[in-house]
Amino acid sequence: MSAIDELATELGRLPGIGKKTALRLIYHLLRQPPTQGRRLAETLIALGERVRPCARCFNLTEEELCLICRDPRRDATVICVVEESSDIGAIERAGEFRGLYHVLGGRLSPLDGVQPDDLTVEQLIDRTRAGLVQEVILATNPSLEGEATALYVQRQLIGQPTVVTRIARGIPVGGDLEYADGVTIAQALTARRAM
Amino acid sequence: MSAIDELATELGRLPGIGKKTALRLIYHLLRQPPTQGRRLAETLIALGERVRPCARCFNLTEEELCLICRDPRRDATVICVVEESSDIGAIERAGEFRGLYHVLGGRLSPLDGVQPDDLTVEQLIDRTRAGLVQEVILATNPSLEGEATALYVQRQLIGQPTVVTRIARGIPVGGDLEYADGVTIAQALTARRAM
Repeated sequence: MSAIDELATELGRLPGIGKKTALRLIYHLLRQPPTQGRRLAETLIALGERVRPCARCFNLTEEELCLICRDPRRDATVICVVEESSDIGAIERAGEFRGLYHVLGGRLSPLDGVQPDDLTVEQLIDRTRAGLVQEVILATNPSLEGEATALYVQRQLIGQPTVVTRIARGIPVGGDLEYADGVTIAQALTARRAM
Repeated sequence: MSAIDELATELGRLPGIGKKTALRLIYHLLRQPPTQGRRLAETLIALGERVRPCARCFNLTEEELCLICRDPRRDATVICVVEESSDIGAIERAGEFRGLYHVLGGRLSPLDGVQPDDLTVEQLIDRTRAGLVQEVILATNPSLEGEATALYVQRQLIGQPTVVTRIARGIPVGGDLEYADGVTIAQALTARRAM
């Protein structure tokens, strides 16, 4: 297989990139100085080598603890639970939330083979056990699986010394938290209710 | 800068990939086995190291001559002149053309600083000089710059022992050859006229 075909195959594995888009990107790269493709390759390798989950909240980081967990100005009495690390960026951009996070690493989905044990629920319960956490906000996506996951986490937290809330459905049902705008996310956080 | 930000910056240099798309791709990669990102990086490096212009037609290849120039079944009496290597794939998919190609490496565009010397017109004239080439088909894009380039190449070929034709405007004016469908390209090739 030629170098172009090989790269087209690898690029085609990425979401939203078909064969035509892959070839367009490749021909673009071939018109650039060779350093550009090399820098892209090096940053790709660095991503795999340097990025790992935060030991406390499972957000992506290059240190033992992520930037948010290391920030002493964050309110450690509130934990916002999200499905993926990518959701944290969306919430941070809204500028409404000053607490800590917990990344579940997905959502319950029997069809995709995602079971409770695949999520970091156990570690979340450990974090609430010390009694410092006063509120856990469940910010899983307002989809079928996200709601089921929120319900599951809420039940697991029964008996822990913490209030459990769910973000308001300001985010369109069936939508994806990662792509919601900041205002909608801020409203959803403000209108959260006890569950 | 973090590994994620660095990769987002590099991905953002690619056409059609903004910050959000870059982050979506990165989070996707982080959910895959690390081998996937590494294979993508390796194929990127291979692209820069292995791919170079064909010594005869300037199509992209990994050998001295490209696959088409090496194919003895191709009709060496007809040369189809295109702006970019990526245009060759579009014409090949149409299945109408059995001759050879010549890649100009762009189109005349004074605003972008592309001058006649930046294109491979001199090398095209050399190829016609031997007298074997009976027809040169100008298949630059039917845009303002593409037409100007075709006109320029046609004038440079005056005095050479070859007929010069222009593909028909079956391709929508202002469009891009690379994205045209096979039927349109086939019609444009069939309806070519002497110029």
